[in-house]
Amino acid sequence: MIAQRLESLGIVLPAPFMPAANYLGCTIDAGVIYVSGHGPIAGGQAITGKLGRDLDLDQGRAAARITALSILATLQAELGDLDKIKRIVKVFGMVNVAPGFNQTPAVIDGCSDLFVEIFGDAGKHARSAIGVAELPFDIAVEIELIARLHP
Amino acid sequence: MIAQRLESLGIVLPAPFMPAANYLGCTIDAGVIYVSGHGPIAGGQAITGKLGRDLDLDQGRAAARITALSILATLQAELGDLDKIKRIVKVFGMVNVAPGFNQTPAVIDGCSDLFVEIFGDAGKHARSAIGVAELPFDIAVEIELIARLHP
Amino acid sequence: MIAQRLESLGIVLPAPFMPAANYLGCTIDAGVIYVSGHGPIAGGQAITGKLGRDLDLDQGRAAARITALSILATLQAELGDLDKIKRIVKVFGMVNVAPGFNQTPAVIDGCSDLFVEIFGDAGKHARSAIGVAELPFDIAVEIELIARLHP
Repeated sequence: MIAQRLESLGIVLPAPFMPAANYLGCTIDAGVIYVSGHGPIAGGQAITGKLGRDLDLDQGRAAARITALSILATLQAELGDLDKIKRIVKVFGMVNVAPGFNQTPAVIDGCSDLFVEIFGDAGKHARSAIGVAELPFDIAVEIELIARLHP
Repeated sequence: MIAQRLESLGIVLPAPFMPAANYLGCTIDAGVIYVSGHGPIAGGQAITGKLGRDLDLDQGRAAARITALSILATLQAELGDLDKIKRIVKVFGMVNVAPGFNQTPAVIDGCSDLFVEIFGDAGKHARSAIGVAELPFDIAVEIELIARLHP
Repeated sequence: MIAQRLESLGIVLPAPFMPAANYLGCTIDAGVIYVSGHGPIAGGQAITGKLGRDLDLDQGRAAARITALSILATLQAELGDLDKIKRIVKVFGMVNVAPGFNQTPAVIDGCSDLFVEIFGDAGKHARSAIGVAELPFDIAVEIELIARLHP
């Protein structure tokens, strides 16, 4: 069903992000999946730079949407089927900001809106959306997530 | 009982914060409530500015206390009764800082102290208290929380 | 078994960190342990300063390793026996950065690598590794953690 929803929205997931070090893209504990911080990486290209200096709000929102797609790719690779997701529980959104840029909720909306487009009410989540000093490799956005799986 | 405790402390909760976008003030998953990042908003007014530039430590601590009240308002609205809270499990406190301000634990104490005033030992929690570059709309403090509910 | 592993690696845990305020070093909820943000403190000395200004990458990685040891000391004090840990589920690593330092994953590897040295596959975790504006008392690294306990 989610696969059909993605198709009807014209969404093709990128290749899943593969951590190079001693950590994992996600872990599952007692029916809860914890997804590592993901960035706006698609087709081997990362969106880098600081909001308010290198990127504007629309570019930031697009980066958050691509980050959400990268998270979905990880979930798809781990679970085999996105229908196993019962609920998006929590999103933590971190925006790479230049001094003075504080429209961080509007940036992370690019992620939240995608989850609701795809999962409907089950995509609505608790959330924080903050501006941080630096992100790995200067990526524009980093997002981590907690979701509940169907038994 | 918690309602009486609030009354005896002279505490009146503010109106709950209503997210304007595709996310929620909190989610409940298997008896755990995840509360979204909240700010120091009371009576329609937000406390804004950076610690170490616009606000001093006492003002920051007061902002963290107001943020905790806003969280309690969300919990009250969601649960109907704060007695349903068994335990505050985890607090993540983020302080809007100017360069060089690192007394972030003393700021977030304004939140932690309130929880212990109200809930006693059940209000004691794991915690981090960090300084971030920017918070939404320049609010002084943002706090998110995990709590366990009674069955 | 973990105690023997630590001995064979020549690792001696520091004294556990004792929070001075109304919060705890960790909380246990339904078999999940939430560890508060810990810093690189050993022998009463804290490693302070910003990566990219006061400390280089190797010093940051060493600080992350010491932070992981401080977390293990807290777990040991709380649980009595590190064999009670079934799995490291999630690590959130925060690096105290000067503008432009974004090799934060390589810093937090100092923590992740230690967990895998000690726990093997059970030490592999979901993770985020970000750069923040300020940390308490200017510590170089702060790390918090979620782990699953054996029943």
